[in-house]
Amino acid sequence: MGIDPGTTVMGFGIIETSGNFMQLRDVGVLNLSKSGDHATKLSLIFAELIRLIDKHLPDELAIEAPFFGKNVQSMLKLGRAQGVAIAAALSRQVPVVEYAPKKVKQAITGNGNASKEQVAAMLDTLLKARVSTEKLDATDALAVAVCHHFQTQGKKIPTAKGGWKAFLKENPDKLIGSP
Amino acid sequence: MGIDPGTTVMGFGIIETSGNFMQLRDVGVLNLSKSGDHATKLSLIFAELIRLIDKHLPDELAIEAPFFGKNVQSMLKLGRAQGVAIAAALSRQVPVVEYAPKKVKQAITGNGNASKEQVAAMLDTLLKARVSTEKLDATDALAVAVCHHFQTQGKKIPTAKGGWKAFLKENPDKLIGSP
Repeated sequence: MGIDPGTTVMGFGIIETSGNFMQLRDVGVLNLSKSGDHATKLSLIFAELIRLIDKHLPDELAIEAPFFGKNVQSMLKLGRAQGVAIAAALSRQVPVVEYAPKKVKQAITGNGNASKEQVAAMLDTLLKARVSTEKLDATDALAVAVCHHFQTQGKKIPTAKGGWKAFLKENPDKLIGSP
Repeated sequence: MGIDPGTTVMGFGIIETSGNFMQLRDVGVLNLSKSGDHATKLSLIFAELIRLIDKHLPDELAIEAPFFGKNVQSMLKLGRAQGVAIAAALSRQVPVVEYAPKKVKQAITGNGNASKEQVAAMLDTLLKARVSTEKLDATDALAVAVCHHFQTQGKKIPTAKGGWKAFLKENPDKLIGSP
């Protein structure tokens, strides 16, 4: 499951994988722009993630995490949104991994500076679905889920002791929350 | 229950109140400085808060929330720590209220620019306990709990329809998380 948590919109994308095979399970956004104050938004993010996790029972949560923002005030709010999302996963024993936006674009398109539209178009091809018609926050979230799959799947098939644990061992900095 | 969530130390303070009466239940810190990476710290904050909430069953969680920090990077990390703490409370149906540090100092000492030591000394008097010997993050957390009590208790006794709900009605901006 991938999410792109923001303070006005949270995108989510869920894929089912088996070896190299990938299938779209769910994609969409939680629109928070009309939800009133910051308090309510945080509560809604938490509740929606719990609902999605309980529905789809993801093995891992991948989060798109920008490291720079406009100002300290907006970063505090973004950090809170991320923290609430991370905690929702932790409360359901789902490990959390983060990827920088550039890393996600690189993984999907081969170009760390690809446009959001290019990423969405590539997702259409990869998932054999029309996800490019979804909102950009939704495709961003789906992209981080696919990125995480690409980062881990290479190690899942060939080696007996591979998969998620091997990935984490080689990329300990990627894990930002573990139950 | 009051908390002062930081990325290296999280202070907590729990008081029991009945009208004007206040009693210390618990105070201390969760030291995260030797807990390795940011990932582990967030998980520890979440787990410790769940433990404290389940042990003391607080009615409300008050959080000391600075609005300005050194840089965007540190604010993102602080925001995440706050977000995880807020979500831990939400997951246990505990409403969350925030106070700026100046507001807390003002409520306890009458001076928004009081030193941390002055606040701690005042808490000794108010709680009839030697809390000033605790770490400063612990007394900060206790201070925000006492501040929240002062903010709400005036309305709890005289009016029939007063208390927490009346306080929230008059201070909707104070609530940052509601189950």
